[in-house]
Amino acid sequence: MAISVETFFLNADAQGTLQAQIQEMIAAGILSGRFRTGEKLPSSRKLADHLGVSRITVTLAYTELVANDYLTARGRSGYFVSETAPVPPSFSPTEKSHDTVNWSRAITQVFTGGDSPRKPRDWRSYRYPFIYGQADATLFDHANWRLCALRALGQKDFAAMTGDYYDQDDPLLIEYIARNTLPRRGVIARPEEILITLGAQNALWTVVQLLLQPGRKAAIENPSYYTLRDQLSHTGCTLDVIEVDKDGLPPELIAPDTDVVFTTPSHQSPTTVTMPTARRKALLDRARDIDAVVVEDDYEFEMSFRAQPSPALKSIDRDGRVIYLGSFSKSLFPGLRLGYLVGSEPFIRQARALRANVLRHPPGHIQRTVAYFLSLGHYDAQIRRTAKVLQERRAVLEKAVEAEELTPTNRSLYGGSSLWMQAPDHVDMGQIGMGLRDKGVLIEPGAPFFAQDTRRHNFYRLGYSSIASERIPQGIAHVANAIRAYRA
Amino acid sequence: MAISVETFFLNADAQGTLQAQIQEMIAAGILSGRFRTGEKLPSSRKLADHLGVSRITVTLAYTELVANDYLTARGRSGYFVSETAPVPPSFSPTEKSHDTVNWSRAITQVFTGGDSPRKPRDWRSYRYPFIYGQADATLFDHANWRLCALRALGQKDFAAMTGDYYDQDDPLLIEYIARNTLPRRGVIARPEEILITLGAQNALWTVVQLLLQPGRKAAIENPSYYTLRDQLSHTGCTLDVIEVDKDGLPPELIAPDTDVVFTTPSHQSPTTVTMPTARRKALLDRARDIDAVVVEDDYEFEMSFRAQPSPALKSIDRDGRVIYLGSFSKSLFPGLRLGYLVGSEPFIRQARALRANVLRHPPGHIQRTVAYFLSLGHYDAQIRRTAKVLQERRAVLEKAVEAEELTPTNRSLYGGSSLWMQAPDHVDMGQIGMGLRDKGVLIEPGAPFFAQDTRRHNFYRLGYSSIASERIPQGIAHVANAIRAYRA
Repeated sequence: MAISVETFFLNADAQGTLQAQIQEMIAAGILSGRFRTGEKLPSSRKLADHLGVSRITVTLAYTELVANDYLTARGRSGYFVSETAPVPPSFSPTEKSHDTVNWSRAITQVFTGGDSPRKPRDWRSYRYPFIYGQADATLFDHANWRLCALRALGQKDFAAMTGDYYDQDDPLLIEYIARNTLPRRGVIARPEEILITLGAQNALWTVVQLLLQPGRKAAIENPSYYTLRDQLSHTGCTLDVIEVDKDGLPPELIAPDTDVVFTTPSHQSPTTVTMPTARRKALLDRARDIDAVVVEDDYEFEMSFRAQPSPALKSIDRDGRVIYLGSFSKSLFPGLRLGYLVGSEPFIRQARALRANVLRHPPGHIQRTVAYFLSLGHYDAQIRRTAKVLQERRAVLEKAVEAEELTPTNRSLYGGSSLWMQAPDHVDMGQIGMGLRDKGVLIEPGAPFFAQDTRRHNFYRLGYSSIASERIPQGIAHVANAIRAYRA
Repeated sequence: MAISVETFFLNADAQGTLQAQIQEMIAAGILSGRFRTGEKLPSSRKLADHLGVSRITVTLAYTELVANDYLTARGRSGYFVSETAPVPPSFSPTEKSHDTVNWSRAITQVFTGGDSPRKPRDWRSYRYPFIYGQADATLFDHANWRLCALRALGQKDFAAMTGDYYDQDDPLLIEYIARNTLPRRGVIARPEEILITLGAQNALWTVVQLLLQPGRKAAIENPSYYTLRDQLSHTGCTLDVIEVDKDGLPPELIAPDTDVVFTTPSHQSPTTVTMPTARRKALLDRARDIDAVVVEDDYEFEMSFRAQPSPALKSIDRDGRVIYLGSFSKSLFPGLRLGYLVGSEPFIRQARALRANVLRHPPGHIQRTVAYFLSLGHYDAQIRRTAKVLQERRAVLEKAVEAEELTPTNRSLYGGSSLWMQAPDHVDMGQIGMGLRDKGVLIEPGAPFFAQDTRRHNFYRLGYSSIASERIPQGIAHVANAIRAYRA
């Protein structure tokens, strides 16, 4: 690659001759890793023109750099970064500005250090990745996804896909969700009641921003999705943490002054229990009595391979009280970052305005690609194929878990992509999880799902969406051995 | 398309026989536009299984619907929505939930009704679209973009592109920005000092969230980008509005208790003036003296076709005091929604954590596509091609403007993609803009760029990034006629 002349600037304040400055500039570029072995420098004429110096100055600088082994001259071809020039292993400029800003004063709110755990990005290098929520490349309908992406990149779609939507969404995607996706959950919504988000987490964040603030109260399930707790804690609202039982969130435990209830009725996260119909009705009644809004995170409903999924809570909501969250990230792939919010029009209107303020709209090309993938039926086929494989893996996992005498907390009826497991009380699954990594086993310790004061360390989650069936028994044997060998 | 069996649910509370319920369910689907003419219904056996009713019940319901002209039977092929069934013009469910929630109480902060104007989404249907910041499909290197997108969709890249990055970015894109893009602006940054955002607006939003709150003071240029004002007003901070002069923001007018200064030094938005080097230094000195952070929005620097762009303010920042914002949305296309933030490591760390909280990370496939487009040199070629066309259009526009005796506020040195224009004092360009739409002319009234109390109505912006040269003279003639004919 040729080094662009536009990356060179003379510093008006610099010391030394122009020739020396040019030499330093180039040497610094090489030493810092910006210019790499074999890359071609601009011709002396070009660089001289660009910097407004005489050509001889540049030539002298180049000659000096050749003498010092930074550059080599290849006759008429020009100057190149030398093979023997000092090259740092990877790009990491050493020059760091001398920061005189007191950032801990300048920054008004600290977002690091919340409950959301850091997960290993290199999970694919583990032999037994019981990781949750990642994509299994072997299950994905790559070919059709590419075709849909290409179609969405076509000339015909170019204007729609590349334009600035301001605060709007791709009408094709909205229509598909309204006509096909939501009715499967028993939900009927008009386009004005739907908003596309950057994934389900972004949908949750939007709801949290709009409905909570200091003086308001949110009720959440315990255990629950840790990032939701982080999002809520940043609003300064009061947080009621309600223990779930075998049927999910008990409505009678919701305090009368609660403003917003967050729930995962179809398959509680992370315990996977399903809320029965009677309790769903009781939950809506309770919400009506205390005038609370209910936020339903309907993640993973497509993975109901064991039984028909029960209709969403939103489907029996006659008051417009339920805000519904869906996502394509789990069922397609998480890097997609596409989800949606369904709610009453006045709420969606504000959510749209907030989204416009924060990021305008989710990228158009992604929306259109998903719209094609859905409407051409590839999505349904993908879901069926995935569900079949998950069902098989689930059977293998349950057998392995039973053989090793490990304890699932429930036999969830619907299916899903994980088991919520309980080790003996004295076992710290965080410690075990770290130790298992040496054996190539990745599990998810359960502690971060519990609110701080209620944290229990003997739970863990076993995801099976990204591990091949044949690896499962050996991986589970490792987990069981580690638990048996555990001494606090 | 076949109607999926999964969109059917029996309502446990419903009145009437099972057969009647099924009939109603299907009729309602047709009447509401969810099921369309020619679509195939599930077989009676499938639907019966799904609903847990006898097959004869479903068959009787179907037969009844055929008699009522909702469905047609095509022998062994099954049942289809009839050609003569009542079909609404487009999908718009009539059933609206009876909303009993008081949303104006439930919603804590209203985001609608800010300063950001609503722009017409159908701008392509205008004959003379002097619109700013939209993509010109004729200039875009479609073929190579598709190739890059395809490569990023390849098996090899699949894992990187589809996985959950948690809080990280595509390392390829970060490296390219660090090694190539930023050095062209004189900026050297390590990867830990760079964060990818959902476009420049999202970058601004992130900065605003982290640095402003009630009790803090922000200084902004006047006129300025309206959405920045909206973002700031939502934090509850104090806002100082500083009039720009022919050299941009005058540093001496920045109040000593200012915490954050927002500026567009390379080409002020929207006036397009460039801040001279001496003033840039004075601005940094002022910021150091009062210990303020400076936020530099370096939009559109690639469009400097008239003169070498001056290095970014960030390039002469020795204190780590400048936070730099860049974007690919303007130079590629706005629907891309990809930008970046460069700043001191402690700041970027918090920005990353905030982003993770709000949306995790920008979609991986987009990041990788842009990384390829950049590193294969297509981006540079695209910029050169675009700049050449813009330069030509600019010449035509300036000639037309002069011929019609309209008044540009300055002859910006660098180039860009718009002219900031001034009509006589009594002229309301908002009114004129609305009137011009009937003639197929789209201009951008200038009033929204001014802070509320300082609003001037006789300015307007003429974008030329999406209008063909040959259309420009006639379009400008319409503008000039409208201004001449204006009576307050």
